Amino acid sequence: MKPGIPKGTRDFSPVEVARRTYIFDTIKTVFRKFGYQPIETPTMENLSTLTGKYGEEGDQLIFKILNSGDYLAKADEQKLSARNSKLVTFQISEKALRYDLTVPFARYVVMHQNDIAMPFKRYQVQPVWRADRPQKGRYREFYQCDVDVVGSESLLNEAEFICIYDEALSNLGLKDFTIKINNRKILSGIADIIGKPELIVDMTVAIDKLDKIGYDGVTKELAEKGFTATDIEKLRPFIELSGTNTDKLDVMKQALAASEIGKKGIEEIETIFEYLSSFELNNAKVELDITLARGLNYYTGAIFEVKSNEVQMGSIGGGGRYDDLTGMFGLKGVTGAGISFGADRIYDVMLELNLFPDSATVSTQVLITNFDKLAEKYALPVVAKLRKEGISSELYPASAKLQKQMKYADAKNIPFVVLIGDEEMKSGKLTLKNMHSGDQEQLDIDEIIAKLK
Amino acid sequence: MKPGIPKGTRDFSPVEVARRTYIFDTIKTVFRKFGYQPIETPTMENLSTLTGKYGEEGDQLIFKILNSGDYLAKADEQKLSARNSKLVTFQISEKALRYDLTVPFARYVVMHQNDIAMPFKRYQVQPVWRADRPQKGRYREFYQCDVDVVGSESLLNEAEFICIYDEALSNLGLKDFTIKINNRKILSGIADIIGKPELIVDMTVAIDKLDKIGYDGVTKELAEKGFTATDIEKLRPFIELSGTNTDKLDVMKQALAASEIGKKGIEEIETIFEYLSSFELNNAKVELDITLARGLNYYTGAIFEVKSNEVQMGSIGGGGRYDDLTGMFGLKGVTGAGISFGADRIYDVMLELNLFPDSATVSTQVLITNFDKLAEKYALPVVAKLRKEGISSELYPASAKLQKQMKYADAKNIPFVVLIGDEEMKSGKLTLKNMHSGDQEQLDIDEIIAKLK
Repeated sequence: MKPGIPKGTRDFSPVEVARRTYIFDTIKTVFRKFGYQPIETPTMENLSTLTGKYGEEGDQLIFKILNSGDYLAKADEQKLSARNSKLVTFQISEKALRYDLTVPFARYVVMHQNDIAMPFKRYQVQPVWRADRPQKGRYREFYQCDVDVVGSESLLNEAEFICIYDEALSNLGLKDFTIKINNRKILSGIADIIGKPELIVDMTVAIDKLDKIGYDGVTKELAEKGFTATDIEKLRPFIELSGTNTDKLDVMKQALAASEIGKKGIEEIETIFEYLSSFELNNAKVELDITLARGLNYYTGAIFEVKSNEVQMGSIGGGGRYDDLTGMFGLKGVTGAGISFGADRIYDVMLELNLFPDSATVSTQVLITNFDKLAEKYALPVVAKLRKEGISSELYPASAKLQKQMKYADAKNIPFVVLIGDEEMKSGKLTLKNMHSGDQEQLDIDEIIAKLK
Repeated sequence: MKPGIPKGTRDFSPVEVARRTYIFDTIKTVFRKFGYQPIETPTMENLSTLTGKYGEEGDQLIFKILNSGDYLAKADEQKLSARNSKLVTFQISEKALRYDLTVPFARYVVMHQNDIAMPFKRYQVQPVWRADRPQKGRYREFYQCDVDVVGSESLLNEAEFICIYDEALSNLGLKDFTIKINNRKILSGIADIIGKPELIVDMTVAIDKLDKIGYDGVTKELAEKGFTATDIEKLRPFIELSGTNTDKLDVMKQALAASEIGKKGIEEIETIFEYLSSFELNNAKVELDITLARGLNYYTGAIFEVKSNEVQMGSIGGGGRYDDLTGMFGLKGVTGAGISFGADRIYDVMLELNLFPDSATVSTQVLITNFDKLAEKYALPVVAKLRKEGISSELYPASAKLQKQMKYADAKNIPFVVLIGDEEMKSGKLTLKNMHSGDQEQLDIDEIIAKLK
């Protein structure tokens, strides 16, 4: 049998695990610094917890788990003989793999509402599964890194999300990235003043094309989508919106003066910017972008998206505020806001920019050679002492030719080799070989420890 | 809808995640120190990769994943109408959740054999799933922490496993635990000299009861299982085996003198003990226990099991050497050896002995109060500065009564609160309250940082 793994899944090699761990740890450290705490939820949720939360298409992409035992015994004869896969599913499957971390989080909050302190600030870094068509950069199993707060309406949370993106991505070595911000209420306001709330997505998509197709192109597209000349005239300030964030806000304040919800959206953005003025950002640019429509049906306030300006790549993060996250599980009126990091894309960005530090890929620090039984015996307390000092070390586990042992050190990217031959055993001065430079020195064990620590 | 989670699965709260992370990190640090590297494999494996590896009963316990789309279309009419669940499964399910980390590891080694350096020393800390009957301490989703080496016959590996157990469990705070060691070849040797290899398990089980039922009890049980008086006389030295490891080895050397395989087993144990004499163990007792039969059909050399002597609990770790791990995937003649840590039981032991350090449960170090807009504005650069110094801090996100904010700090186990009122803003001396002692001091921000770092 030739072994393989399911389409859209991946094995991770030691180097890949080390690099991914480096990304996760860096992000988690920032989450904790901002007072967020980790939770973990089961891989499997009850199917009823998940279905109906992601739309019809989403439900199709949920991996369902077959009931144990004689699962067909309970299946309805008619549905089975009609071979109605959709209906039979609910009779032979009660569990499924989580599709995201948001619905499990909502379920968690409702189930544990008596044990958690509100506002509840949690982060969660776990894999999710989607039966999507696998393609380059899209997997059926991938990690999400989510940070969310529920039970707090304060816009300080939104401002801190920007700080979290800034600090985490800067700590990972990204030098130039943009955090785009929008607000669902501004989009509602714009649709409001032209009286076409149902065309909000078409409107946003068209406006977003200004750079590519120019003003005439945008108005043509808007007309095709059912906007009148009067509508388009009212939209003009938004289509032509440009300049600094302050410029944009000034224009919008005028243009949205007649929309209560629009004004509220502007006010929220301004409050977030005011909070930000007390914080110093490292490398992030913050840009108000009213074409940002990510998860439009989902978000109710701020909307975020992060893009690297150094590498051509889709968004490496996103999020926003959603009212009533827990309503689907019966806990009404609890607001929430959250962002997530796209770990796989961040990985690709970092690889392209060569941002992984060597320390993220080195595991064993030093290999001690093993030429014969005598040298092995001599080496045992040496390796024990190195480890006692916290230096990750290996004694090659059997006597072998030097070349073979060197090849092993190379393959594992081990930076130092200690050679123990007859002379070394006599003098107590061991040969320390630097595998990068090829340099060799004669040192006693304490000098080696000092050198490697 | 009242939300719930599948039987046998668990949500982990912030405190639980922190404690589990502490256990995993401590163990992983030791793995790395011994030159082991992490890999990760997908949650889902091809069903064909898993079936036939765990016996009929094991196969029943594998969670199968329903194929996506119209899965019934491909199902055989006859099998379906006969409602033969077992046969239908392979027609509607191609993937399953991994049942352990060993088979995926074997698959990994075979698939990536050209990219890995032998001996390949890998560790893997990931969840596995079994559709077992849930009960106290037994879950359907649980983590395994495995460390294995393939491609090295050296018994140094076995000796180092003992060191790994010793160091990891000692670092976790365990003071008194026993690492039991046996060797499959010794058991084979014993069965050899009485010519009853098929009764090896009955024999081992009976001998193990000496403490409880005495010599007469053991011989009675052996007789019931089909051992003759001559057999029992030959078994006598093993039944009565006691004393130090050296005593036991001396007795066995005589008793097993006629068995080649038995002598090989003794020699292997002696070699491991000799390696160990070069290493200093912290808290572990190592005990030769010839009744240890863990995974008898699986292991071919050393067998390990770890028990705490401070808490009544099943084994908290185990492992051994297996020949030909990768043979099932077509790569013959590659030996392997490995051990695993029972993280859930270690968690319970540590909880009972109160071994978790406070640092494993504290996340936010300091909460800054928020009484009104003015104080909030004052507090923003304060929280920014604390975070810049690496101190995990939160500004309560909206103005609220002191009591509510204190309750929040308590619930999150936050050790310090900084109070910012009118006086504090005037003087620049902020009030730092120690939440454990109740003490308050007036300090400026630099003094607070010095105190908290």
